[in-house]
Amino acid sequence: MYKIAVIPGDGIGKEVMEATLHVLEAIDVEFDYTFADAGDEYMEKTGVALPQETVDIVKSSQACLFGAAGESAADVIVKMRQELDLYVNLRPVKSYPGTKSLFDNLDFVIVRENTEGLYIGLEEETEEGATALRVTTRKAAEKICKYAFEYAKKTGRKKVTAVHKANVLKKTDGLFKETFYKVAEDYPDMELDDRYVDATAMFFITKPDMFDVIVTTNLFGDILSDEGAGLVGGLGLIPSANIGDKQGLFEPVHGSAPRIAGQGIANPSAMILSAVLMLDYLEENEAARKLENALVDVLAEGNVVTVDLGGSASTMEMAAEIRSKL
Amino acid sequence: MYKIAVIPGDGIGKEVMEATLHVLEAIDVEFDYTFADAGDEYMEKTGVALPQETVDIVKSSQACLFGAAGESAADVIVKMRQELDLYVNLRPVKSYPGTKSLFDNLDFVIVRENTEGLYIGLEEETEEGATALRVTTRKAAEKICKYAFEYAKKTGRKKVTAVHKANVLKKTDGLFKETFYKVAEDYPDMELDDRYVDATAMFFITKPDMFDVIVTTNLFGDILSDEGAGLVGGLGLIPSANIGDKQGLFEPVHGSAPRIAGQGIANPSAMILSAVLMLDYLEENEAARKLENALVDVLAEGNVVTVDLGGSASTMEMAAEIRSKL
Ligand SMILES: CC(C)[C@H](C(=O)O)[C@@H](O)C(=O)O
Ligand SMILES: CC(C)[C@H](C(=O)O)[C@@H](O)C(=O)O
Repeated sequence: MYKIAVIPGDGIGKEVMEATLHVLEAIDVEFDYTFADAGDEYMEKTGVALPQETVDIVKSSQACLFGAAGESAADVIVKMRQELDLYVNLRPVKSYPGTKSLFDNLDFVIVRENTEGLYIGLEEETEEGATALRVTTRKAAEKICKYAFEYAKKTGRKKVTAVHKANVLKKTDGLFKETFYKVAEDYPDMELDDRYVDATAMFFITKPDMFDVIVTTNLFGDILSDEGAGLVGGLGLIPSANIGDKQGLFEPVHGSAPRIAGQGIANPSAMILSAVLMLDYLEENEAARKLENALVDVLAEGNVVTVDLGGSASTMEMAAEIRSKL
Repeated sequence: MYKIAVIPGDGIGKEVMEATLHVLEAIDVEFDYTFADAGDEYMEKTGVALPQETVDIVKSSQACLFGAAGESAADVIVKMRQELDLYVNLRPVKSYPGTKSLFDNLDFVIVRENTEGLYIGLEEETEEGATALRVTTRKAAEKICKYAFEYAKKTGRKKVTAVHKANVLKKTDGLFKETFYKVAEDYPDMELDDRYVDATAMFFITKPDMFDVIVTTNLFGDILSDEGAGLVGGLGLIPSANIGDKQGLFEPVHGSAPRIAGQGIANPSAMILSAVLMLDYLEENEAARKLENALVDVLAEGNVVTVDLGGSASTMEMAAEIRSKL
C-alpha cells in the first residue's frame, strides 16, 4: 500500500487525473490516495496557489500525481521542486505507435537538474534593467550527474551525454562539465561524451540516434525536453518525473489547456505515462510495463483514441479502453 | 566600392571563403577587400586569437566576411560582437530545394539580441560552485525589438513573435516582454504575439508555420537558431549576420570542421548565403537576389553539389557552377 498525494489542479488536469485513477484501479498495486489542492482555481478562492497543507501532504507521501496548473504553474511547480528538493527532472523522449512522431524507435531520456541554475529566483531590478543569477553548485551538479549514470546503469542504457554551453559559460557550465567527467570515473563501462546545447538542439532533429541519456542544467533541460516532445508528436504524450531522495512527483508536461478544458476530450496518455514513471519509481516495474503496454496497444490500434490522435473517443472512453487491456 | 574586411580564419573557413570570393567576382558590385587574421592558427603563432589590428580593420570597413574559427570561436566572435556593438544576430530559417529540410516552404527569421544576457561575461567562482549573471538592459531590449519590427516592415513580413521565459525569469524576461509590447505600439499594422522558449522549441517542429519574425534574447536565440538549422537540414546551409549601427559581420553558422578541413569538400552554401545577407545589408538587394537564385538553381539541379548534399563536387567546383549561373 503506497501513500500517494493526488493534485488534480486546473482544467484538463482534473480530467486526465480522473482517467488515470480509473486505469490504475485495474493495476495490481494498492494505493492510499490523499487529495490536495493547488493551482489557479484554488488561488481564486484563497489567494494562494500552493498552500502549505498541500506541501505537507506531499511530504508525508511516497509519491505525488500532479495534473496541471494554469497561470500559476510556475509558482506551484517550481516551488514544489525546491521545497521537496526534487532535484531530478526525468523526461523520456520516446516514440509511440499511432502518433505524429517524426521518427520511429526514438528512445532517449533527458535528466534535468531541477532546483538551481536560472530557476533559483535571484533576480534584481537595476538602474538599467534587470539581472538574474544563474547558480551552479558543485553539490547539485554532482548529484544530478550521479543520478544520470545510476539511471543509465539501472535501465541498461549505454551512453550518457552532458549538455552545456561551457564555451561561453566558462565557470558555471565549466564546473558542470568538469563534475560530469569526474563522476563518470566511477562508471568506467559507460560510454560518454558532451555537447553544446545549441548543437544538441540541432542534433535532436538531424541525428537523434546519437542520444541515450542526456544530463543537463535546469533551463537547458526545460527547452530540450519540449523540443523532444515536438520530435515525438507534441505534448499529449509526454510524462515527467520530479524526483528527490524522499519523494517523486509525476506530472504530464502539458498544461491545463483552458481552450479544451471541460469538454472531456483531453488525451490522458501523458498523465497515464506519468503514472508509469511513478510505478517505475516505486520499483513496481512489472506493473509499469503492463500499464505502458496497455496504452501502447490502444495507440497502435488507433480505434479508441482522442481527437488529437486522430480518433473521436473521449478522455474516459480512451481510459476505459486502456483499462480493458490490463 | 565597398570596403570589406575578410577573415578566413581556420579550417574550412578558408576554403568556403575562397569559394565565396570567387563567386562574388561575378557579381556586379565592387568590393575593396582587406584580409585579416583571427582564430586558432593565428593564436598558435602569436598567443592571441583576435588581435586588435583585426578589430581595427573591421571597424574601418563597412562589412566583414568571416569564415570560421576553431576552438577559439567563442573568444573571437563573442568579443567581436561586443567590441563592435553588433547588437543584432539575424538568422534566416529557410528551406532550400535539394536539401534535407524537414519541411518545404519554411521561411522565418530569428532576430537574436547579440551583446548581453548570459554572454556578458560576468561569472564568478563561489565557495559552493559558480554563478553567472544574466543581464537584460532596457536599452538593448528596445534596440533589438525595434530592429525586429523595422526588419519585418522592410521585408514585408507580417508577424513578430517575442520568445522568452517570463514565467520563471520574471524580472529579466518580464522586462524583455514588456519592452516588446511597448515598442510594438509604434507598429500598429504588425501582427504580434509572445511565446515561452520551451514551447517555441516544440512548435518549431510541430507548427513551424506560426513563425515569421522571432525576436529573443542572446542564448535562447543561439539555441533556437541551431534548432532551426536542424529543421532545414543542418548547418551546411545556414548563414548569419551580426549587425550594428556601423558595421555588419557575416558568417556561416558552421564551424571550422577540422575533420573535413583540407580536403576541399566543404559545402560553400552557408558562406555564400552569408554574402547574400551582406549584399542585403549593403542594400544591394538586386545583386543579393541574383546570387541567392544562382545558388538555389544549383541546389535544385543537384548535379554539381558537395558530398553532404548528395553530390560529389568539390567546394570550388560547386562555387564555379554557381558562378556560371550569374
Ligand atoms: C511551468 C514551468 C515553470 C515549467 C518549467 O519551466 O520547468 C514547465 O515548463 C516544465 O518544464 O515543467
Ligand atoms: C561559438 C559560439 C560562442 C557562438 C554563440 O554561442 O553565439 C555560436 O554558437 C553562434 O551561434 O554564433
